Amino acid sequence: MQEHDGTGRVKLAFRSLEKDGTVSNERTITVPTGVSAFDAASWNGIAIDSTCGGYGTCKKCKIQVTSGDVPPSKLDSRAFTQEEISNGWRLACLVRTVTDVSIDVPPLTTRPKAATVGVGRQVILRPAVQKRYVELIEPTLHDQRTDIVRLLDAIDDIEATVSLDSIRNLPRVLRASDFKVTAVFIDQALIDVEPGDTTATRYGVAYDLGTTTVVATLLDLNTGVPLAVKSMLNKQQPFGADVITRISATMMDPTALDRLRSLAQSTLSELTAEVCEEAGINPLHVYEVALAGNATMTQLVLGIDPEPLGVAPFIMASADYPDVEARELGITIHPRAKAVVLPSLGAYVGGDIIAGALASGMDRDKRLRLFIDVGTNCEIILGNGEKILATAAPAGPAFEAASIKCGVRAASGAIETVKIADGDIVIGTIEDAPAIGICGSGLVDACAVLVQLGLLDHSGRFVTDERAAEISPLLAPRLMDREGERVFVLTWGATIGDASDAVFLTQRDVRELQFAKAAIATGWALLLEEFDVEERDIQQVLLAGSFGSYLSPASAIKIGLVPKLSVLRIVSAGNVAGEGAKMVLLSAQERHGATALLDEIDYVELSDRADFNDKFVTRLSFPS
Amino acid sequence: MQEHDGTGRVKLAFRSLEKDGTVSNERTITVPTGVSAFDAASWNGIAIDSTCGGYGTCKKCKIQVTSGDVPPSKLDSRAFTQEEISNGWRLACLVRTVTDVSIDVPPLTTRPKAATVGVGRQVILRPAVQKRYVELIEPTLHDQRTDIVRLLDAIDDIEATVSLDSIRNLPRVLRASDFKVTAVFIDQALIDVEPGDTTATRYGVAYDLGTTTVVATLLDLNTGVPLAVKSMLNKQQPFGADVITRISATMMDPTALDRLRSLAQSTLSELTAEVCEEAGINPLHVYEVALAGNATMTQLVLGIDPEPLGVAPFIMASADYPDVEARELGITIHPRAKAVVLPSLGAYVGGDIIAGALASGMDRDKRLRLFIDVGTNCEIILGNGEKILATAAPAGPAFEAASIKCGVRAASGAIETVKIADGDIVIGTIEDAPAIGICGSGLVDACAVLVQLGLLDHSGRFVTDERAAEISPLLAPRLMDREGERVFVLTWGATIGDASDAVFLTQRDVRELQFAKAAIATGWALLLEEFDVEERDIQQVLLAGSFGSYLSPASAIKIGLVPKLSVLRIVSAGNVAGEGAKMVLLSAQERHGATALLDEIDYVELSDRADFNDKFVTRLSFPS
Repeated sequence: MQEHDGTGRVKLAFRSLEKDGTVSNERTITVPTGVSAFDAASWNGIAIDSTCGGYGTCKKCKIQVTSGDVPPSKLDSRAFTQEEISNGWRLACLVRTVTDVSIDVPPLTTRPKAATVGVGRQVILRPAVQKRYVELIEPTLHDQRTDIVRLLDAIDDIEATVSLDSIRNLPRVLRASDFKVTAVFIDQALIDVEPGDTTATRYGVAYDLGTTTVVATLLDLNTGVPLAVKSMLNKQQPFGADVITRISATMMDPTALDRLRSLAQSTLSELTAEVCEEAGINPLHVYEVALAGNATMTQLVLGIDPEPLGVAPFIMASADYPDVEARELGITIHPRAKAVVLPSLGAYVGGDIIAGALASGMDRDKRLRLFIDVGTNCEIILGNGEKILATAAPAGPAFEAASIKCGVRAASGAIETVKIADGDIVIGTIEDAPAIGICGSGLVDACAVLVQLGLLDHSGRFVTDERAAEISPLLAPRLMDREGERVFVLTWGATIGDASDAVFLTQRDVRELQFAKAAIATGWALLLEEFDVEERDIQQVLLAGSFGSYLSPASAIKIGLVPKLSVLRIVSAGNVAGEGAKMVLLSAQERHGATALLDEIDYVELSDRADFNDKFVTRLSFPS
Repeated sequence: MQEHDGTGRVKLAFRSLEKDGTVSNERTITVPTGVSAFDAASWNGIAIDSTCGGYGTCKKCKIQVTSGDVPPSKLDSRAFTQEEISNGWRLACLVRTVTDVSIDVPPLTTRPKAATVGVGRQVILRPAVQKRYVELIEPTLHDQRTDIVRLLDAIDDIEATVSLDSIRNLPRVLRASDFKVTAVFIDQALIDVEPGDTTATRYGVAYDLGTTTVVATLLDLNTGVPLAVKSMLNKQQPFGADVITRISATMMDPTALDRLRSLAQSTLSELTAEVCEEAGINPLHVYEVALAGNATMTQLVLGIDPEPLGVAPFIMASADYPDVEARELGITIHPRAKAVVLPSLGAYVGGDIIAGALASGMDRDKRLRLFIDVGTNCEIILGNGEKILATAAPAGPAFEAASIKCGVRAASGAIETVKIADGDIVIGTIEDAPAIGICGSGLVDACAVLVQLGLLDHSGRFVTDERAAEISPLLAPRLMDREGERVFVLTWGATIGDASDAVFLTQRDVRELQFAKAAIATGWALLLEEFDVEERDIQQVLLAGSFGSYLSPASAIKIGLVPKLSVLRIVSAGNVAGEGAKMVLLSAQERHGATALLDEIDYVELSDRADFNDKFVTRLSFPS
């Protein structure tokens, strides 16, 4: 059993058990230390009983820790017998392990009426997709009500609106099923009438449409349980790594918009087929989808010219898209399914961030909280539930590792953690594969460690060989000159002492990181100023997004990416964009909440601030 | 001041004022409670200023209530000063009174155009299709409103609803046209944004989709002027002449519905191309169409299974189709054009009849009027503007001449009139071509003439040769036996005296006509009974439909098809279905009027009436 120091990651190996004891699902999830087992499971589609949603009150989220050491909490002793505790039974919402553990999840006892999604948000299940099974009285010469009136007269809790499509097959369906049918609604819109009782099948798909990675989660709308999660690279990748290169493509080639749209659609379409297949459900029973993406991804997948997003003054076609047919996304599900497209606050605070703010409860948590979605474009929100400010900081590609000499995307073999153990450097790679390069979180860790060791001074300059030898004779040989530049070798290649095939960090890489983190730190510093609060007033920092979630909070503090607070206040929030998309599918209320956020959040434009550059320069150095 | 119980009607006494204060028009209108003063005025040709068309957004429809109590609405307090409100000033679109009121209408600030359509109906031009030309201020870093908000902020008299389609090209169109664009709305829905000022081009097409003949009229919505009219046979003809044969086809062949739909669409599509070409306009500038058809034609062209229309208890899928895209009709016009499908009262009182009732003003004319649309299925409406009854009578195919020995459709060479001049028979054929057969109006004329001459007795039997010779030695030779049946020769063929290639009327033909006219006469007789009025109380009989319009009123009286009234009271109403379709394109108010008719008309089912057969038998004979 490996001990962690609180800055790294832990592996949770889940096994979902059936009533007969057989294993129905097995999955190992890597999360930052501090994430509860319940949240880790929820975010990854592993259903655990709960009605309180992870607040430690319902005592239903029982799991059995089969390996690894998890000290029982106070509540565990109320929820379990001493014998059960000895056997590893714990409440999942209180399991925040610092060691790798194996967990058995017992079969669900109840269908939850609420689901926990996002950052500990409990969402009451009230999907817009509603079904009503009715058995109608057949028409006679004395009761010549039209088919549609007959149907809707039998449904007294929905004031239905009717489209041509929804009644086209009505006469046939009614008569083929002895007038026993299930009406399918989205909000008040009747979208279909199905023969017999189909109320048990009601699904939705939530998409996180990232510039790099796209994630689809299939949800059972009857239970709120995620049934399958799949991700893949956005097929638009060949057009360039970031939104600007893709916008540029549409400016230079009139066919590019159509091609980019089609690639995004194809990505969504394949993921949809995959999640449906994994869960063994018919795609025609998916009636609604939700999509969270940045403003560019959103306009591209909807086929809207993105050019004005890419040039000053950065104008969106529209902030929201209220009534989108799912077929507009190129996916093959129910032909009249709808799509909820998360609204965008601005060209650089998109639907993914609105989804994230929703999932993090930025509009209702009373604590002063700082939300940072770290990426090429970094979105920052500061709020206390009453007042909410947002901005975007152009961090550049350092975190995506695109401009880093040995930078690679976060894939197998990428160095994702760098630590000191026994005075030596210990690197961790994704999937423990041989190191092929360094990804964003590894870069942050590396710089943090080197600053901590003193091998990088606070201005961000590598120390001299002499100074290095004084600090650590063991590590000094890793600091060397290479092609006229100071580099620090993280892993040697074939030959120790030779950096030619090693993975190393260059002086320029460090500068890139400094620029990136200074942009972000200037962003939140200006928001704090606008809010008229101090760094120390911040009660929680949420690191969001696919990159932010993997970032070590301790390292983020050490390099000054986040305010200097207790590491316990820095929380990895997970894929909050995807969580927000799930929330709007599970609850029509949350959907309105997402739209309300557009009014509740005030956008602060940084690009024309006179004091931006001064603040930026002072934030370049590493904190002491 | 008379109090109403909320279920009845109110009197609105309008006075239209000129700029010098003189009264230019005075009119008292009775409407159901709940109808707005604006709608009541519009329906009766009283012009009130408005640009939004009665949606409470433009605040232009100012009127002064001079007697009667109308509480001010919230919007009134924004549109008027407190003093004006005290003086009775209100927005007409929000005045929904339950008491009788007197209203002064100020002079118009803009001259509304009106068009005369239907049976002397004057319609104020307020098409649902609206255009607004705007010149927008270009965005800056300090004005980052989205494109759609920028556009809609500039249009203050329409509370727009926005679809994805309508904004897809917005960024490009705005920037390609220096932010000078024309927004196209249908009611409140933004359907397109066109570069530059396109307000001069605004067209619609009205369709009368008959079982036999289809008519399309292209309208200039800016002026109300019809620019082109074209008609052709419904391409569904090969499936059978009447609705029942077409419904049967769908019951026997699962592919028939798709084929029938496609044939109807192709008919509409060709006609649309023809009217646009004739008028020399671009079909993309046609933004809305209206369609009037019987319930079967309507369901077939929309692709809705018609089977339940054809068998007892005769059930429609829906009475109305509120939000149909024009592309559902298979026509190539503006890609986001809408279609207004006239609603149907029942399986055999369809949208064509609702259109006809609208065009004839059945809901507002105070006279007791009988509306008869003569055809295989004959629709009958009796009303006085307060109470309106409708029914359908199964007249059979006699009027279409399908079951008549020498019957032909009303085409070149068909005998359409039969008269007596100087004691001889004078026939008139369509286009004065050599007679090839007899069509419906000729059949009615022939029977009327023969009854008048006494060659047919009142029971409908041809007289003996002896009796014929007594009556007219000139005509007697035309009455002869042929293939065991009495026939009367209307035109001889090659050889006078030889009926083999003549056009003649058989005893069985006369019986067919008797059955048909008895069914119709029983229909209106039962409606008169339900209404508790006598034949002589009827002030006007409207003969409608493509057949009814060609019928000789005098002959219709002589055979007992219509009540025995002065011939001056019998009016050929023309193609009222097509006129109704035009009206709903020209006026959004008339469109609401069409839907309101569904509530205002009470349907009387004849097929289960115990006294139907007795009355039918007494109506078989010709009146003396």
